[in-house]
Amino acid sequence: MERQFVQWLRERLPGHPRLRHGLGDDAAILAQAANADSVVTVDLLADGVDFVLDQVDPRRIGRKALAVNLSDLAAMAARPLAAVIALNLPRRGGADLAVALYEGLLPLAERHSMVIAGGDTNSWDGPLVISITAVGEVASANSRPRPLVRSGALPGDWILVTGELGGSILGKHLDFEPRVDEALLLNENYDLHAGMDISDGLSLDLSRLCAESGCGAALNLAAIPISPAAHALAAKEQVASRAETPGLQRPASRTPLDHALGDGEDFELLLAAAPDEARRILADQRLGVRLTHIGEFVPQSGLWHDVAGARQRLEVTGFQHHFD
Amino acid sequence: MERQFVQWLRERLPGHPRLRHGLGDDAAILAQAANADSVVTVDLLADGVDFVLDQVDPRRIGRKALAVNLSDLAAMAARPLAAVIALNLPRRGGADLAVALYEGLLPLAERHSMVIAGGDTNSWDGPLVISITAVGEVASANSRPRPLVRSGALPGDWILVTGELGGSILGKHLDFEPRVDEALLLNENYDLHAGMDISDGLSLDLSRLCAESGCGAALNLAAIPISPAAHALAAKEQVASRAETPGLQRPASRTPLDHALGDGEDFELLLAAAPDEARRILADQRLGVRLTHIGEFVPQSGLWHDVAGARQRLEVTGFQHHFD
Repeated sequence: MERQFVQWLRERLPGHPRLRHGLGDDAAILAQAANADSVVTVDLLADGVDFVLDQVDPRRIGRKALAVNLSDLAAMAARPLAAVIALNLPRRGGADLAVALYEGLLPLAERHSMVIAGGDTNSWDGPLVISITAVGEVASANSRPRPLVRSGALPGDWILVTGELGGSILGKHLDFEPRVDEALLLNENYDLHAGMDISDGLSLDLSRLCAESGCGAALNLAAIPISPAAHALAAKEQVASRAETPGLQRPASRTPLDHALGDGEDFELLLAAAPDEARRILADQRLGVRLTHIGEFVPQSGLWHDVAGARQRLEVTGFQHHFD
Repeated sequence: MERQFVQWLRERLPGHPRLRHGLGDDAAILAQAANADSVVTVDLLADGVDFVLDQVDPRRIGRKALAVNLSDLAAMAARPLAAVIALNLPRRGGADLAVALYEGLLPLAERHSMVIAGGDTNSWDGPLVISITAVGEVASANSRPRPLVRSGALPGDWILVTGELGGSILGKHLDFEPRVDEALLLNENYDLHAGMDISDGLSLDLSRLCAESGCGAALNLAAIPISPAAHALAAKEQVASRAETPGLQRPASRTPLDHALGDGEDFELLLAAAPDEARRILADQRLGVRLTHIGEFVPQSGLWHDVAGARQRLEVTGFQHHFD
């Protein structure tokens, strides 16, 4: 029941020095920091689209719903501050589910000193929907460090990426670590020209960053860090395609590289920096995560790669929502 | 298609002096005003719960989804600044639907100088879900005017309400005017002790305000402003209950007052002020909407009303989400 759940939540949620008013009022009031601007982002996740409720501990779903928002804050090099959480719960089992979702997300919120400032808890006859809005902070205009945006990449800049890519569906899409600390550390210590998080696949998101920056990108495919999960997924698909069509022409199964280029939900950082600055970043390697140089931005729009010394266009793959 | 829709949106959305970065990045950046704190609120609406998509122009749904958030900002006497919009669209017809939702909400956003700062547009096989987070501003701590909260009502304070109550389901629940201007005007010019918006019914919301303030309330039922729609709804129910059970015992049909006390989605303001201040407010009547004195806050918890000079407990009715 809504009232009892809100009561449980009020007792469970820790206070926060920046929260002037929270649960119990119609809206939350967050005390503003000096010389800081607000960063706002929203992500909506639904059963059957972003997770399968029957097949996974709901704590991991709650955690993921917050983590995707933290990844968006990381993409701007913003410091997390607060989140508000809207739920549409299935009527049966909704109360236990709500508790589990919060149990999953609260430790991640605490780890990033983020306050759960409010929410809207509803029930219906449909599947679980969880929509989280995260609020963060960056230095105000004309102050340093500048926030990380997509539009600043210049031809000649190196393309850097954190972690390893592909095969996220095997587990990382639920349990990934949003690169908040990495983005803050890099943006405070180096001159990054542009950045974003990879949520819909490296090639699609890189093409978006290029579009905002008015340039293109040439990838060094051999340098792309392919995750063990991308290898595992490619191997599984190959076995499956053999089993399904014995003796017949096999459907094209994707390689580990295809997965690294096109799989969604990596939630790694994609960054642009001038070559000298990029070399300093790579030599420093203070991050807990690997950083890899995977190509350069180029003047001509589109994605490219070199085959035997000749530049060829690379097909853009990745995840997009389709509706008509 | 997602990309085309986002493109349409980017061309359609007006700029805003406070928006440093908007659509096209992973999050929006809002320039902070001096001496202002942020107010954040979220509301999620779903087909079949908060509206019936088949029976109503989707523009009215988009408008309502923003208006309920504006009503929450009004409840805090916060000045609207920005909104981010998460959609789960049905796959078929989703693109036209998304356009219509935005066409409905954009004029209301403009009217309140609010910028649409970002969103998350998804599709799925389920019904339409729209979750809007609104950001507003109030004067920072130790500055004036103080934000309106639920916890400040004192025994002896008068209970004031804007507009007329009940029967919202006949149309007002879609087309109501959130009381943003009224809340700002009253809070800037008068010493209001507490306030909120009435979203789940006068008696339930008043009981919530009392709980936060640690007091009770005695209503003057004869003074409650009953809307024409509450009368119409009561009359309709009476006719229906006669038609359904000829000759049999009739189910109790609700009176217009029952509707004014218990119907959800009035989105009027409920306010507490000391008697002298309340008299000044009522004498001023600068608002475009009627303000009515409907009772007093009392030391004893619970809701009360007077019957032939004797104080009796009033049953709390209203809308709550049920899940178990």
